[in-house]
Amino acid sequence: MSNEAQVRADDRAHVFHSWAAQGRIDPLPIERAQGSYFWDYTGRRYLDFSSQLVNINIGHQHPRLVKAIQEQAAKLCTIQPAFANDKRGEAARMIAEVAPGPLNKVFFTNGGAEANENAIRMARLHTGRHKVLSTYRSYHGATATAITATGDPRRWPNEPVAIGVVHFWGPYPYRSPFYATTPEQETERALAHLRDTIVFEGPATVAAVLLETVVGTNGILVPPPGYLAGVRALCDEFGIVFIADEVMAGFGRCGEWFAVDHWGVVPDLITFAKGVNSGYLPLGGVVISDEIAETFRERPFPGGLTYSGHPLACASAVASMQIFKEEGIIEHARSLGEDVIGPGLAELAERHPSVGEVRGLGVFWAIELVRDSAGTPLVPFNAAGAASGPMNDVAAACKERGLWPFIHFNRVHVVPPCTTTAAEVREGLAILDGALTVADGFYAS
Amino acid sequence: MSNEAQVRADDRAHVFHSWAAQGRIDPLPIERAQGSYFWDYTGRRYLDFSSQLVNINIGHQHPRLVKAIQEQAAKLCTIQPAFANDKRGEAARMIAEVAPGPLNKVFFTNGGAEANENAIRMARLHTGRHKVLSTYRSYHGATATAITATGDPRRWPNEPVAIGVVHFWGPYPYRSPFYATTPEQETERALAHLRDTIVFEGPATVAAVLLETVVGTNGILVPPPGYLAGVRALCDEFGIVFIADEVMAGFGRCGEWFAVDHWGVVPDLITFAKGVNSGYLPLGGVVISDEIAETFRERPFPGGLTYSGHPLACASAVASMQIFKEEGIIEHARSLGEDVIGPGLAELAERHPSVGEVRGLGVFWAIELVRDSAGTPLVPFNAAGAASGPMNDVAAACKERGLWPFIHFNRVHVVPPCTTTAAEVREGLAILDGALTVADGFYAS
Ligand SMILES: Cc1ncc(COP(=O)(O)O)c(C=O)c1O
Ligand SMILES: Cc1ncc(COP(=O)(O)O)c(C=O)c1O
Repeated sequence: MSNEAQVRADDRAHVFHSWAAQGRIDPLPIERAQGSYFWDYTGRRYLDFSSQLVNINIGHQHPRLVKAIQEQAAKLCTIQPAFANDKRGEAARMIAEVAPGPLNKVFFTNGGAEANENAIRMARLHTGRHKVLSTYRSYHGATATAITATGDPRRWPNEPVAIGVVHFWGPYPYRSPFYATTPEQETERALAHLRDTIVFEGPATVAAVLLETVVGTNGILVPPPGYLAGVRALCDEFGIVFIADEVMAGFGRCGEWFAVDHWGVVPDLITFAKGVNSGYLPLGGVVISDEIAETFRERPFPGGLTYSGHPLACASAVASMQIFKEEGIIEHARSLGEDVIGPGLAELAERHPSVGEVRGLGVFWAIELVRDSAGTPLVPFNAAGAASGPMNDVAAACKERGLWPFIHFNRVHVVPPCTTTAAEVREGLAILDGALTVADGFYAS
Repeated sequence: MSNEAQVRADDRAHVFHSWAAQGRIDPLPIERAQGSYFWDYTGRRYLDFSSQLVNINIGHQHPRLVKAIQEQAAKLCTIQPAFANDKRGEAARMIAEVAPGPLNKVFFTNGGAEANENAIRMARLHTGRHKVLSTYRSYHGATATAITATGDPRRWPNEPVAIGVVHFWGPYPYRSPFYATTPEQETERALAHLRDTIVFEGPATVAAVLLETVVGTNGILVPPPGYLAGVRALCDEFGIVFIADEVMAGFGRCGEWFAVDHWGVVPDLITFAKGVNSGYLPLGGVVISDEIAETFRERPFPGGLTYSGHPLACASAVASMQIFKEEGIIEHARSLGEDVIGPGLAELAERHPSVGEVRGLGVFWAIELVRDSAGTPLVPFNAAGAASGPMNDVAAACKERGLWPFIHFNRVHVVPPCTTTAAEVREGLAILDGALTVADGFYAS
C-alpha cells in the first residue's frame, strides 16, 4: 500500500474523529507542513488560512521551536506536578510577565476545556457562589462544564450535563441583539442587558462572568469600545470573578500577548491554550490574580491533572515565547491586521456584494457572507448538509486554488499564522477574491 | 542565583499546583531522571517507586522513545483532528490491535479525565439514558463529569457540578462492605449489590457502569474472581454500557496490555492515558466497540478537542508500544509481580505487624498499614495534617533512604516503572523494609 493509502486505511478503520458522523467524513491525509503551508500526499500545497484550529500561531514546524522540543526531550520529558521543574517555573514566570495587572500565577492544563473547567472551579470557591454567566455565540470546550458554558449548538446534544450556567447575549454590532445602531449604543445596551441578567439571577449567586475576549469560532466578534471595561466594572460592583477565555484570542492572535491588552482591561482569570505554544504539544492553563491565588494559600485547591505543568509542553511554551519576542511576532501580527488584512478585506468587501461585513484585528478576521441586501446569512444558523451548500462551494473554491480556509456557518475566517508574511497574506486574499465570486453567485440583488 | 534557587523561586512565585494549599507546599526541584531513578539538584538520587503519578511505565527517558519524539518533532508536531495523519492512524491501529474483542476505534484525548468525559458522552448517546453508576473508592479525573464520577474525597469540594452520577460499592475483600469472608462471597455479594442498585435506580435510566478495572489510587483493589465477568453479564442483561477506566491499570501496569485481559472480560469502552506513552507527552483516549462506533456512523459525535490525535503525542504512543513489544515489557511487568514484588511483599508482611494486607499484580501493588490486630487503618480515611503523621513518617523514612514512594491514606503503593529490574525492585523492597519498621512503631499489639 502507498503511504497515503495506508494513512487513509488506518484512519478509516481506527480513528474516531471529533464532532463528526464517522461514516460521512473522508479525512484528507496531510504529509508535511512548513511555515504558512501544508501539503497532502499528492504534493498539493495549501496556504494555511486556518492555523489548523486557530492554534498554530508561530507557523508550522518553526525550526527553533522544533529544536527546543528536541533538546528538552533529551533532557526531561516529564515529571509529576507536585515537583518543581525548571521549564514549568520558567513558562509560568514568562506567562505572568506578559499577563496584565496582578495576574502572577499559572495553573497548567493540557488544553482549553480543562483551563475553563479549572477557572470556573476557582471562581466558585473564591466567591462561594455557584452560577456562571457566559454568552450565546461562544465556545469554551467539550468537558462537562465547558460544554455547558458554550453558547453554540455543540452544547445541545450534550445537555443536560453540568449545572449552574446561565447564558446571556454579548455585543454583536453587525446583528445587534439590542437593536443598537452605533457601537456606543451596542456597548451601553449590552452592559445594561448583562446588569439586568446579574440582577435577576441574583448577584449573590453569581460566581463568574466568562467570556471570550474576542469571540472566536462563533464569529470573531470584537467587543465595541467600552464593553470590556464595563464588564470589569459590573464584576467589581457585584463581587463577581471576570474570566476572560483567551484560548483562541491570546498569544498574538489579536496582535497582543493577551487580547484584553488591546483594551487595557484586567480580568481576574485568563484561560489560554493554543497560541501559548502553537499546539506543538498539548498545553493550556489559567493565569490567576493574586487575590484569587490567595484564596488557595491555606485552603487546598481541589483540582488537578496528571500532566499539569508538563515539562516538555512547558519547554515548548518557553521557547515559543522567546521566539515571539526575538522575532517580533506580536508586532508583526498587529501590523498584518492593520496594514494588510484589514485594508485587503475592506477592499474585497467593496467589490463583493455577498460580503456583509468584515471585522477583526491582528490575524483574527471574519468575512460574513450574506445572500441579500437585508443581510440574510448566506446559509442559516447551524446549517448542515444541503443547507450549507453555498459555504461548501466557497470552501471548495478556496481549496482548489490552494488555500485552506476556516469556515463556520456563513463566515469565512481569515486566521493565518501570526508569522505569515504580507506577501503570503496577499496571495491568500487573492484566492479569497476568487472564492467570493462563488459566494456572489448566490446573492440576490 | 543557583539553578536550584531559580527553580524554587519561579515555582513559588508563579506555579499554581494541583490539589494543594499553595502556601503549605515546598515542591522539590527535580533536575534529571533516567530509567528507574530521578535526581534532585543536590545530586540526591531516588528510586522511583511511584512511576511519578503511576504513569511512567516505560521508565524515565527511555532512549528509543526520546529519539522517536525527536524524529517526529522534526517531521510534524501537529495537525488538526479533522485531517488524517500517519502517526494518529498508526497509534489507533496499534491500540485496537492490543485491545480485547471488537474494540477497534480510538478517540484520542489529552489525558484521563477527558477520556472518561467522552466515554460517558458516548454511553449516554448510545443508550439514550442518562445515569452513570460508578464506585466509591475510585478516581476518574477532575473535569466536571469525571470528578462527579470520582468516589473519593477529591470530589467533595467540587460538588455540585455535574449531574447523573450514582455511586455504588465495589468489592474490597480486605474490608468487605458486604461482610463477606471469602473472595467468592465478596464477588457474589458485590454483584447482588450492583444488581440491586441498577434495579432501584431503574435499568432504563442507566447508561453506563464505570469502574477502574483494578482500582488504582484508592487502594489497588483487585477484583475478586468472577466480579468483572459478573459486571459484564449485568450490563448485557440491562443494556448498559460497561466502561473500564484503565487510565492507571492499562498498558503494562497489571502485566497485560489492558487489565481486563487478566480476566478475559471485554468492556464496551476502555479509557486510557498514562501508560500508553508513559506521559512523555499528554495523551489519553477511549477505545470503542464496533457497536458503539456504529451509533456515530450517521449521527455526529458531539465532542472534540483541539489536540485530539495529536501527531507528536501519537508518535510517542506508537514508539512506546513498539518498544513494549520488542523489549517484552508487558511480560517483564507480569513476572516482576509474580516472582519479585508479590513474594517480596508477602515476606515483608510476615515480618511487619503494621502490614495489614499486601495485594496487587504486575507492578501495581499496595501495602495497607494498620495500627492494631483489628486492622484499624494506620491513619484515618482522608487524614490530613497531624492525623496523617505516621504516614508522613513512613514517607520520610523512604525518601531518606533514597526511595520515592506513592502514598495514599494508610497505604504505600508499590508502583515502579514496568521496566524496573528485579535487582532495583529488591533494592526498593529493602528500603521499604526499613520504613515499615517506622510504621511498626505505631502498632499497638
Ligand atoms: C475560545 C475557546 N475556548 C476553549 C476552547 C477549548 O479548547 P480545547 O479544544 O483545547 O479543549 C477552544 C477551542 O477551540 C476555544 O476556541
Ligand atoms: C483511574 C484514573 N482515571 C482517570 C484519571 C485522570 O487522568 P488525568 O489526570 O490524566 O486527567 C486518573 C489519574 O490519576 C486515574 O488514575
